[in-house]
Amino acid sequence: MGEDVTRRNFLTIAGAAVGGLAVGAVGGYTLIPPKETIVEVPRDVEVEMPVPEWPWAYPRFDVEAVKVRAYDAYFVSGCAYGAFEGILGELRENVGFPFNTVPSKMMVFGKGGGLGWGTLCGALNGALAAVNLLTSEYGAVGGEIIGEYTETAYPTWKPDETVKTDADLPTSVAGSPLCHVSVTKWCEESGFASGSIERKERCGRLTGEVAGRSAEMLNTLLDGAFVPVFQIPESTTTCNNCHYDTGSVANVHAISDCVQCHGETH
Amino acid sequence: MGEDVTRRNFLTIAGAAVGGLAVGAVGGYTLIPPKETIVEVPRDVEVEMPVPEWPWAYPRFDVEAVKVRAYDAYFVSGCAYGAFEGILGELRENVGFPFNTVPSKMMVFGKGGGLGWGTLCGALNGALAAVNLLTSEYGAVGGEIIGEYTETAYPTWKPDETVKTDADLPTSVAGSPLCHVSVTKWCEESGFASGSIERKERCGRLTGEVAGRSAEMLNTLLDGAFVPVFQIPESTTTCNNCHYDTGSVANVHAISDCVQCHGETH
Repeated sequence: MGEDVTRRNFLTIAGAAVGGLAVGAVGGYTLIPPKETIVEVPRDVEVEMPVPEWPWAYPRFDVEAVKVRAYDAYFVSGCAYGAFEGILGELRENVGFPFNTVPSKMMVFGKGGGLGWGTLCGALNGALAAVNLLTSEYGAVGGEIIGEYTETAYPTWKPDETVKTDADLPTSVAGSPLCHVSVTKWCEESGFASGSIERKERCGRLTGEVAGRSAEMLNTLLDGAFVPVFQIPESTTTCNNCHYDTGSVANVHAISDCVQCHGETH
Repeated sequence: MGEDVTRRNFLTIAGAAVGGLAVGAVGGYTLIPPKETIVEVPRDVEVEMPVPEWPWAYPRFDVEAVKVRAYDAYFVSGCAYGAFEGILGELRENVGFPFNTVPSKMMVFGKGGGLGWGTLCGALNGALAAVNLLTSEYGAVGGEIIGEYTETAYPTWKPDETVKTDADLPTSVAGSPLCHVSVTKWCEESGFASGSIERKERCGRLTGEVAGRSAEMLNTLLDGAFVPVFQIPESTTTCNNCHYDTGSVANVHAISDCVQCHGETH
């Protein structure tokens, strides 16, 4: 940060930011409108975050509401925004602070596996970010979300009010968390083009399902009843015996299915 | 969200959250400590977000400071957290609100290409989320960050104070935004194991570089001088003539290099 950024900037920006709020009581505090004077605070003062410590405690989710919200949000700004907004939007609307301080739009980039590059499925990216915001158990829950995704025949769920088509759609199992693999497998199974309204509808429903399952797991976690069941494919553990971090080859640091892309190479 | 979540919860949570702040002036507003009474707000009142509209205006970055912060943060919670915190941490510390309302820990999941699954490089994931928070031009800037990543020989930068090793490290070009491809190519080029301290040091430096380049592009954007230069590989555009969305095959919705994984199949 350049030397030209001082607390004066901080106070000016902050003043502008909350300026849109009506004067009144927020969080029990009374907000008194700013005066013309800018208060200087010494630079070495530690600024405490005005939000709770991470992770942010959450209440029980209405899973169906999360699904529908994620599905609808998909058609606003894509899969990653959709899944993130499905979860965070529920919290923002029903709880408010601190969930209303994180703009869901920050996750739009995840669409199409990262701005269309076909890597991590955006629905996973958005859901994982939301889960990671809400629990220190993001590793166990997130691993289960990814693992389950690779084995699930999507889409199996349909909202009452669909956007692109109300048709029941063919399903496919991705075997991978990659957007590219997931979409192409579905196109090949279904015969629909990747640019078709059916493919978009499929990804919208999938976004609802991934967000919904994430919310469901978060609920189970609240009950102290979360038990992950996904097992890494045996082919991967076999390959990684030699290829992972400290094996005899040790040129891989990943747990995705090896055989899907590399085939049975030995 | 269950019916048991009411505005009373919202106000209670909000009060608890800001309760840790010293009484004083923030953003020009005077904070008056909460009284014992809880103010009830009717449920149908629209709760305005207490942060600016997305995207959040940012000041010029000190690029070297972003690199060092991202590098150091990598060794706290991994690549995605590292890149995100490199950018957001600078803003939180030097500007404050609203950047101090988003916990960087929400991006930890991106490590190892998504909890170790080897998909989108976590440094990219974290940097893209930060960029997406700060500008509506996240598509152009983010596409350039990803594209440049695929063509860059990492690591080329080293901080003054290294964590794992001070050695100059071999470099490799990933040709892909995938963690798995990026790490394995480097292991093969360098001869170091994926579990080695050198590989971790390499990913730490790469995290610094990706965050730094993102900050540099954000600076250029502030100047109105951002011009993306990355071009999608010709092999990809050739394949996608038929395979993309509305082509004659139309079974692909991705722009990553096709030949790297699929070879010259026709």
